[in-house]
Amino acid sequence: VHVDDWHITNPLVHLSRSPTTITNKLYSIMRQIIIHSGSDLPLKLSILCEDLNTAVQQVSKALSSRTTIPILSGIKITATENEVVFVASDTDISIQSTLPIKQGEKNNVKLEKVGSIVVPGKLFTDMIRKLPSEYVDFIVSETFQITIRSGPVELQIAGLDPEEYPLLPQMDKLQSLVLHSDQLITMIKRTLFAVSQNESTPILTGVLWQLKNDTLTLIATDRHRLSTTEISQVKAENIEFTNMVVSGKNLNDLLKLLPERDSWIEVVIANNQILFKLDQVLFYSRLLDGTFPDTTRIIPQTFKTEIVLDTKAFIDAVDRAYLLSREDKTNIVRMNSTEDGKIELTSTSSEIGKIKEKLDTFAFSGEEVKISFNSKYMIDALKTIESKQVRIGLTGQMSPMIIKPDQDEELLHLILPYRTSN
Amino acid sequence: VHVDDWHITNPLVHLSRSPTTITNKLYSIMRQIIIHSGSDLPLKLSILCEDLNTAVQQVSKALSSRTTIPILSGIKITATENEVVFVASDTDISIQSTLPIKQGEKNNVKLEKVGSIVVPGKLFTDMIRKLPSEYVDFIVSETFQITIRSGPVELQIAGLDPEEYPLLPQMDKLQSLVLHSDQLITMIKRTLFAVSQNESTPILTGVLWQLKNDTLTLIATDRHRLSTTEISQVKAENIEFTNMVVSGKNLNDLLKLLPERDSWIEVVIANNQILFKLDQVLFYSRLLDGTFPDTTRIIPQTFKTEIVLDTKAFIDAVDRAYLLSREDKTNIVRMNSTEDGKIELTSTSSEIGKIKEKLDTFAFSGEEVKISFNSKYMIDALKTIESKQVRIGLTGQMSPMIIKPDQDEELLHLILPYRTSN
Repeated sequence: VHVDDWHITNPLVHLSRSPTTITNKLYSIMRQIIIHSGSDLPLKLSILCEDLNTAVQQVSKALSSRTTIPILSGIKITATENEVVFVASDTDISIQSTLPIKQGEKNNVKLEKVGSIVVPGKLFTDMIRKLPSEYVDFIVSETFQITIRSGPVELQIAGLDPEEYPLLPQMDKLQSLVLHSDQLITMIKRTLFAVSQNESTPILTGVLWQLKNDTLTLIATDRHRLSTTEISQVKAENIEFTNMVVSGKNLNDLLKLLPERDSWIEVVIANNQILFKLDQVLFYSRLLDGTFPDTTRIIPQTFKTEIVLDTKAFIDAVDRAYLLSREDKTNIVRMNSTEDGKIELTSTSSEIGKIKEKLDTFAFSGEEVKISFNSKYMIDALKTIESKQVRIGLTGQMSPMIIKPDQDEELLHLILPYRTSN
Repeated sequence: VHVDDWHITNPLVHLSRSPTTITNKLYSIMRQIIIHSGSDLPLKLSILCEDLNTAVQQVSKALSSRTTIPILSGIKITATENEVVFVASDTDISIQSTLPIKQGEKNNVKLEKVGSIVVPGKLFTDMIRKLPSEYVDFIVSETFQITIRSGPVELQIAGLDPEEYPLLPQMDKLQSLVLHSDQLITMIKRTLFAVSQNESTPILTGVLWQLKNDTLTLIATDRHRLSTTEISQVKAENIEFTNMVVSGKNLNDLLKLLPERDSWIEVVIANNQILFKLDQVLFYSRLLDGTFPDTTRIIPQTFKTEIVLDTKAFIDAVDRAYLLSREDKTNIVRMNSTEDGKIELTSTSSEIGKIKEKLDTFAFSGEEVKISFNSKYMIDALKTIESKQVRIGLTGQMSPMIIKPDQDEELLHLILPYRTSN
């Protein structure tokens, strides 16, 4: 089994979408089994424990603790002449990590026999972390029995037939763009928190990705708030999209794998999948079905009031007001302008009391302000702002509040105000 | 209200034990209210925010999130001429922290008016952490309204009547012993994990403390295992006890407060309470009712087999075997001696497979070994052993296993073996 062989079709991807294709896909799996039967299964190799551990930890993030498909509780390991490939999948995301047999002078793997096997995912992941020797011997029998030896330890475990493991999504349409790892991390963190936690509107549990005229825009909203960020002059080839929605949960998993250090990430889109190509890791996520609501018209372009505040002073003040506001479980904080050009934050809990704080402004223009908002949403938005000053745009008591960094026009948060009595 | 006044009786301690005394205690509380009514309540002071924070965090560990007695959701703050005293209690444990008005040249508190108040515990604890200024102004009105000022922040909160707050336990019988903080930490950690998690035998959820002939012994058991440790030549005055049982949960709370650095801890026992006197913190715990079972006879004094193993190698091997044993939810690991004087650990999961590992012994004397035990219990026990070598004592397949450090006779763990078929 060569890695290229995998790029055929992924039965699983279709499995949960169009039940009518299951029979066809089962035939296709059975055909695979016949073609490959026993030919190169008895994998045998010795592998550096540290590298094995790294690869296994990476893919293990796609292992689901409760899967109804037994083989998906496993990790598929495939050794070819050049590399050992690890794959785990929960049908929604799939992760592949590749370990080269040799890296320069470093011998990661002593390969005796190419082949593949599916190992029990959780046990293997936990066990590899605790093996005592530098190299781990790994021997697979014709009946998928696995013998693992490390120093005095001998482990015998039952593997599963690798031919039954689903294929990775086919990504043959090579529509792709390239992003810096730190750009991607920043863009995700600026929007991810605003996705809906409410499964009754599945499309809003994802982040919308749009690429137009080499500008990539991410948007998330839960109907009470919206966060959007963009970068221009993206390196993209033959590609434009307007309704690509990636599950917030999956983006959160991706964040754990993205390297902090500066490196390029290729993003490939095909059919209903998005693929992030990291150094030695491929991260596949299924796209969400459905149409993301058009949010362009709800973002006001002009304001009746604009205020510039010190970001840290503002977040600290909102944070204190939040502590009082959460006592009544409302999270409501009120913001008023004062006659001396400052703003005052207040929050009242009927049972416990009241907090009041005046804040200096760097700039204040337009009408007076009387508005109430969810302090938790404001804290979430402010936490993503690195600029020292934050600009608040307002258009009256019942219109959306706009929060953005004073220096950076590529990030915008919108919060719908609360209707309060006074 | 002077701190000495508190040492009267603690209605709460009795409240949940003997409902018949409630009426008497209510009279006593009401008497207190009449005596002190309004005399020195309007507390007013300015206090170093950092020290306030430390004291409040310390006592907040006694705040219960779900209390049926509203005033116990609060922290009582009492300022006298010399100190500010903070108290929190959930009736099972009570913590007091004392902040001196002056420490050498350092002015912790600028006192304007002595007095006391009960503040809402959780809100106050969280808010104090986030106030911006060095000193916090704290003003209490006759109606228990509290005004807190810190820089631009003004907080108005409703306090509660401090006279309604229960008194701390009376500890007038000055039976006490003195321990090094690190001795106390070690003794608790060596036994705490072995307490029962099963509330159906409440007495076993605690650790037994015994003091006889200046030797302090701690014992914990959940009927499947037992852990005991002792120190001799304890500095104790007029004190002996054989059935003093302290809740494991409370000892866990105490561990969070015990200073890592070497200092003396005075332990005072009176009636149904134990008091740990730390530097500026008093930690009161109610003792558990009931008689701890006599465990002296179940600890074997002679063995048919004795084995000395490398502690780290043994714990690592048991840990690996545990990973397999937990797949069947049994945690069963088997230990056999081999003909070449080694031991072999094995574990089998019916579904997944088998692990086998041979371990060198430093010493092996006596009969051959065939025994099965709970790997989780063995790991818990081994983790407390700092000695490089561990000694295992056995008296046959169905008799208790004894695990102790090879160098230190003051710690002993007992594990009952499993009865297995082969």
